[in-house]
Amino acid sequence: MASYNAAPLQKLIEQFEKLPGIGAKTAQRLAYFVLNMPKTEAEDFAKSIIEAKEKIRHCNICCNFTDRDNCPVCMSHTRDHSVICVVESPRDAMAMEATKEYRGTYHVLHGAISPLNGIGPDNLKIKELLNRLNNQDVQEVIMATNPTVEGEATAMYLTRLLKPLGIKVTRLAYGIPVGGDLEYADEVTLARALEGRTDL
Amino acid sequence: MASYNAAPLQKLIEQFEKLPGIGAKTAQRLAYFVLNMPKTEAEDFAKSIIEAKEKIRHCNICCNFTDRDNCPVCMSHTRDHSVICVVESPRDAMAMEATKEYRGTYHVLHGAISPLNGIGPDNLKIKELLNRLNNQDVQEVIMATNPTVEGEATAMYLTRLLKPLGIKVTRLAYGIPVGGDLEYADEVTLARALEGRTDL
Repeated sequence: MASYNAAPLQKLIEQFEKLPGIGAKTAQRLAYFVLNMPKTEAEDFAKSIIEAKEKIRHCNICCNFTDRDNCPVCMSHTRDHSVICVVESPRDAMAMEATKEYRGTYHVLHGAISPLNGIGPDNLKIKELLNRLNNQDVQEVIMATNPTVEGEATAMYLTRLLKPLGIKVTRLAYGIPVGGDLEYADEVTLARALEGRTDL
Repeated sequence: MASYNAAPLQKLIEQFEKLPGIGAKTAQRLAYFVLNMPKTEAEDFAKSIIEAKEKIRHCNICCNFTDRDNCPVCMSHTRDHSVICVVESPRDAMAMEATKEYRGTYHVLHGAISPLNGIGPDNLKIKELLNRLNNQDVQEVIMATNPTVEGEATAMYLTRLLKPLGIKVTRLAYGIPVGGDLEYADEVTLARALEGRTDL
């Protein structure tokens, strides 16, 4: 008896295990939960995977996920289309949206430059960004890539590309997180917070 | 803009949120991960949900999950069919299997008596257990329901039902977990461990 589980159950467990942050135990729990769902609910679950996969595509303008040609932000008349916030992933755009402070638009790169993983500028949505800059009046590009080596490299690369076009390029501020504790901030963050200190 | 996400994406996120232990943030992460999967993989995932749901049923004998009429344990000639270990769920049976110490068979109740949740003896696979006891030679029934109020109540109920039939009914031992720390054991567990102390 190679596996105690029946094959279809084992397969479902393995599918769950492929998901990020889902280990063997959790995958088991999720699979058993699905088996105990009413049949229609399990079918809805399966259908929503297929549907999301079929209907969701990249916005023609900002490359964020959408089920239309363009995403709601790019179509909105109340947003400031002269400001573009460059992020690595749709989730980062969502995090920015959650602040409810940002009124400009986005551009989703779908990754960051990472030579070790074979991801170069051509694998990112940089051409699409340059097209936007050529075709519409953009005043400012805000780099909101992640504060990682890859995110930094991507921001540097884009800055070198955009500065010559006469576009204002900015970067999200580094510093200690609100509610954080100085004692627990790492030295790099703390050094950056000191560097970026503002007048009171 | 009620939700920032496109409808099919939002629906997939909500489906993941229904799963146990999956909060809003994790559901988002999983949904985005599925969107970034190759299409065939996402289809495999959806298919495995449908297939598991369609093919997995209860073993005719022990009510554990199986894709045949009977589960491998009930069909095995090397297991001791005169011993039945009564568990609440298929996952509990799997945990017992993982010990590699138990050579008897199982009976899965698919729940525990819980009047507050409207679950009475009739909602559990108790009738099926009694059928087994009538039709085959059973020497011992091991109660391996969870050490919760509901699990205890279920074990008590079954014991009262089975004892008059002249069947030996036993219970898994309570005690401090191996590798645990006396200091952190709760008083009830510790009291039970004391009560059940064995000669050295």
